[in-house]
Order: sequence, then structure tokens, then C-alpha cells
Amino acid sequence: MKACIFDGQRVRLDAARSEPQPAAGEVRVAVLLAGVCRTDLEIVKGYMRFTGVLGHEFVGEALGGKYAGRRVVGAINCPCGLCDLCKAGLPTHCRRRTVLGIFGRDGALAERLVLPEANLFAVPDSVSDRQAVFAEPLAAAIQIGKQVSIEPGRKVVVLGDGRLGQLVAQVMRAWRAAPVVIGRSDAKLAILDSLGISNIHADHARPAQDAAIIVECTGTADGLAMAISFVRPRGTIVLKSTVADTAGLDLAPIVVNEITVVGSRCGPMADAVAMLAEGKIEVEPLITAEFPLDAAPAALAAAAEPDAIKVLVRP
Amino acid sequence: MKACIFDGQRVRLDAARSEPQPAAGEVRVAVLLAGVCRTDLEIVKGYMRFTGVLGHEFVGEALGGKYAGRRVVGAINCPCGLCDLCKAGLPTHCRRRTVLGIFGRDGALAERLVLPEANLFAVPDSVSDRQAVFAEPLAAAIQIGKQVSIEPGRKVVVLGDGRLGQLVAQVMRAWRAAPVVIGRSDAKLAILDSLGISNIHADHARPAQDAAIIVECTGTADGLAMAISFVRPRGTIVLKSTVADTAGLDLAPIVVNEITVVGSRCGPMADAVAMLAEGKIEVEPLITAEFPLDAAPAALAAAAEPDAIKVLVRP
Repeated sequence: MKACIFDGQRVRLDAARSEPQPAAGEVRVAVLLAGVCRTDLEIVKGYMRFTGVLGHEFVGEALGGKYAGRRVVGAINCPCGLCDLCKAGLPTHCRRRTVLGIFGRDGALAERLVLPEANLFAVPDSVSDRQAVFAEPLAAAIQIGKQVSIEPGRKVVVLGDGRLGQLVAQVMRAWRAAPVVIGRSDAKLAILDSLGISNIHADHARPAQDAAIIVECTGTADGLAMAISFVRPRGTIVLKSTVADTAGLDLAPIVVNEITVVGSRCGPMADAVAMLAEGKIEVEPLITAEFPLDAAPAALAAAAEPDAIKVLVRP
Repeated sequence: MKACIFDGQRVRLDAARSEPQPAAGEVRVAVLLAGVCRTDLEIVKGYMRFTGVLGHEFVGEALGGKYAGRRVVGAINCPCGLCDLCKAGLPTHCRRRTVLGIFGRDGALAERLVLPEANLFAVPDSVSDRQAVFAEPLAAAIQIGKQVSIEPGRKVVVLGDGRLGQLVAQVMRAWRAAPVVIGRSDAKLAILDSLGISNIHADHARPAQDAAIIVECTGTADGLAMAISFVRPRGTIVLKSTVADTAGLDLAPIVVNEITVVGSRCGPMADAVAMLAEGKIEVEPLITAEFPLDAAPAALAAAAEPDAIKVLVRP
């Protein structure tokens, strides 16, 4: 089959990739549409030392199992079911997990992929492919509400106007909270304007240590420092960006101001599918372009452009 | 009066320091016994750019107000009562606060100090001066339980066997949790042995990402990195050390493992006095030496010695 792979050196199309083979309890899925995530761009820079088929956002058609012939989306963490964390009810943190297109398992920028049947979620007919492909990043946004109480009317500052920031803002709006997005892209802030979501250009946002909840999804090392300067004492920073370079970062205010920092990663796919089915998330303004699988390397390059939001790939 | 000051260059005794003058609502206190804290040692290195009378741990006799003639301990944060954070019920985070011996207010290594009457807490006769002087750091340890649920039987890993780590371990024991202290000083670990508190030398502690709650009180920049390597996914790190130097610190696991980091500073003095009165905290093993006020600079030097725990100063 065709697949877009990272070989450790570069991204390229492999026109004769071997078919992924389902193990016991696993199902093959024919990919209908896939999305490019910042994590894919990080992997290409060496993150996770992953090589293989890229991509973990998709909607596809199950080729077997109880969803055979139906459209599905998939949770990306594949647990062992046996380790202490699986037994403790934390399968997404399984010590021996593979992760679709990220760790130990070929991904979704391909004609077909394989996932455990338990990872699949059926997509209702009312949800289009272009909506459904957002289920995985949308779940990551919804996860915030599983970790921090978001009450209606609550001001939530979202740092970052990119892929995840846009979804987080829409989720907060769906929950009747009051999101305010701080970003650096006029084009991306304009999308928020068009959706009626409050936003400020970072150049005009003054850190006043007065925000009770800040969601950091800038994807940059500066994001946490910025969040610390905006959050009020005893406030909460939800950290979505994996910050590996912390040179010059002053964490003392976390103690002095008794800030809580909550790391947040993947989320509940079923909730994401439900929110899409309820029509509460507007995905079309977030779709920058759609590429055929043959042009997947160009899709990754397009996703790395500053004004890009979600770039899709159709096998 | 006599006082031990930091003049921006060095620590010295000022034999003719002007008496602190109480403002409206404030009370003068004759210091009976004071303690040296790591923060004092940091101030001498430039922390908070404080100059003036050092020290914020004390027991004294109130010289006026409703506690006149009685022994008192004191909360160190002096709020304005008017700013948004005071109004929001967060007076310890007041934007215009002064802090005894730390910011904008002369401290406790002196014959007399001044605090708002509302900051004072009477000490029962059953609590000795040598016990009462621990109220402030003990409150900081008790604060952990205000921020994180500590259930009986819960394993709590305490990183650091120094002043605060010892008190945190004793508080956890008082709450019937199961503290395990990881430290680097054989002498300090021996004190924990004598108290029947589990402990491991850091050289023998293997990071296994299996601790649900870690309290970081090493006072070093390495502490947070160590905590991240010990905490389990979805676990909690209570951060007590103010970490200003984060070079080389990898925060990505906070996101990937969905760790919660809770900054924690000062705590409830009334609870600390009550815990001392209940006899649940053994302070004598923690007292390294007692110096007269005249020798306070030597007391600070002694407190900086590797095996020192609590050094006291008696005016």
C-alpha cells in the first residue's frame, strides 16, 4: 500500500509499504481522511525517535470486527492491559503502550492502519469525514475538562491560536465558559473573530497575574513562562505543550504564587464524537488545505507554514 | 535594640537598630526565640533583594493588643486588605503585601518585631518556646494537606531530608499517611530512623514513576527533575523549593504523563499550633544548635552547614 513515512532522515512516500497486520483483538481500518498534527512535525525533527508511517488523526472504514463496514475514529494509545498502570485504570499511560504514528506502531498517513478494536469509535452519519478527522485533537481539548473544573461563565485564557488553541477555545465556548485566546497570527485571530470568540494579539496582552485558568497550547518553550506571567496566585495552568527546552525559565513563581500546573495529553474520543455530532465545533474555518496521499510530504510542509491550521491528507 | 541584619553585602549585628513602630492594627512583639530558615540563607545570596532585619520564624510575647503579655507566633504575610486578591480571600497572596524578614518588613532576628494583630496566634502553655518556634515552617508543611488530599495509608514520597522535609514527613505521619523520605545526609536520615519514619538514601532510590504523591523540598534545582522521574503518570508533585535555575530541565514528561505540579508556600498557623499542642511533632531531634542574638551571624553560618537542621537564635 501507499504510506507517508519518516525514515529517520526525511519524509517520503513509500508506494510499496507492507500492509499492517492485525494482532489478536486488532482491526484493520481503511483510512478515508487523515490530519497533520504538530506532533508529526516534531517527530520529523527527531521527537520520540519514531520512524515509520506518520500520522495519528484519522477517520476510516473498519475492515473487520464489530464495526466492519462502518466509519470509525480511533484512540491512539494501545495499552498492554497487564502492567500496573493498565490495572490501575490508566491504560493511556500503559508502560508498554504503542502509539499510532508516534511510538512503535505505523500511523494514519497511509491507505490502511491497524488498531485494537477497543480503540475504535463509530462515527454517526451526521458527522462528515472532515468533521470526524478532528476527533482526536478535539478529545485532547476536551480532556482539559476532565482535569480541571470549567464552570459556565468562567474566563479561560487560551495561550496559542494554532490547531489546538482553536479547538480548546471552541470547546470552552461549547461548555459556556468565556474563552479569551492570546495569539500571534492575525489570520488565526481573524478566524476566532469570525466565530465570535474573544481574542487578543500577544503584543497587546498585558500580563497581570489575574487569570484563574490558563490553557497553554502555544507549542513553544516560551508558552509556560507566558502562562506563569498571566495566571493569578492559586490559579491553574493547563500545560499542553511538551516543553523540552527550559533554559532561562523561572519556576519560582509556581511556588510563591502557589500555582497549579496540570499536564494534559490525550482525551476521551467518545466525548469528541458526541460534541461533533451535536454540531458544537466548527471545523471548516480550521481546514487550511487537503492533499492527496501521494502528496503527503507536501502536506507536512504546508502544515509547517506559519498561518497553517489543519492540513488534511486523503488516501 | 539589637538585631541581625543583611545590609545587602553581609550579615551583621546592628546593636543600635531603631525600634520597629507599629502602624494601626499592628502590635509589637518581644522575640523569645527565633529560627533560621533556608529562605534566610537565600536572602543573604540576594533573593528578594531584601535588606533589613532577617528572620521570620519566631515565638514572642505580645506587647500590646488582645494578646498582650501572652506568648504568640505569627503569620508572616501582611496583606493590604484592599487589593483584588485580598478581596478574593487570598490575603497571603496580597499584591501589596509585606513579608516579615523577607519583603518590606523587618524580621524576627531581633529583640522586637511588629506584625498586624490579625497575624498573631496565641501559644498554649503546654507548648514550649522550642516547639512554638517551629509553627511557621510546620504550617508550610500542613499547607500541603490544604492543596492535595492526603488519605490515611497513602504513600507519600518526600524528597529532601532537611528542615522542611523532616517536618513534612512528621506531618504526614500525624495524618496517618505513609511517608518515605529520600535524602542525601546520613545524619538527617538517622533522625528519621530514630522517629520510625521510612527513608532511603538518594543513591539507592530508583526512579520508577510509581509514586502517586511526591513532595519536593530539596531546596535545589535538581529536585523537580528528580520528582518528575519518581512520580507516576497522573500523579502529583507538591513543589516547595523555589527553582529559579531550570537549565536542562525537561518538562515534557509533565504533559506526556499528565502530572500535576502544585506550588505550595505558607500555611495555616492555627493548625500548626494545634498540631504542636497535640504533641504530634517531635522538634528536639531537629534542633541543631541555639545561639544568642549577639551571635546571630554565626547562627546563619551554622545553619548553612550541610548537616544542620534547625538553628535557633535567642534574643
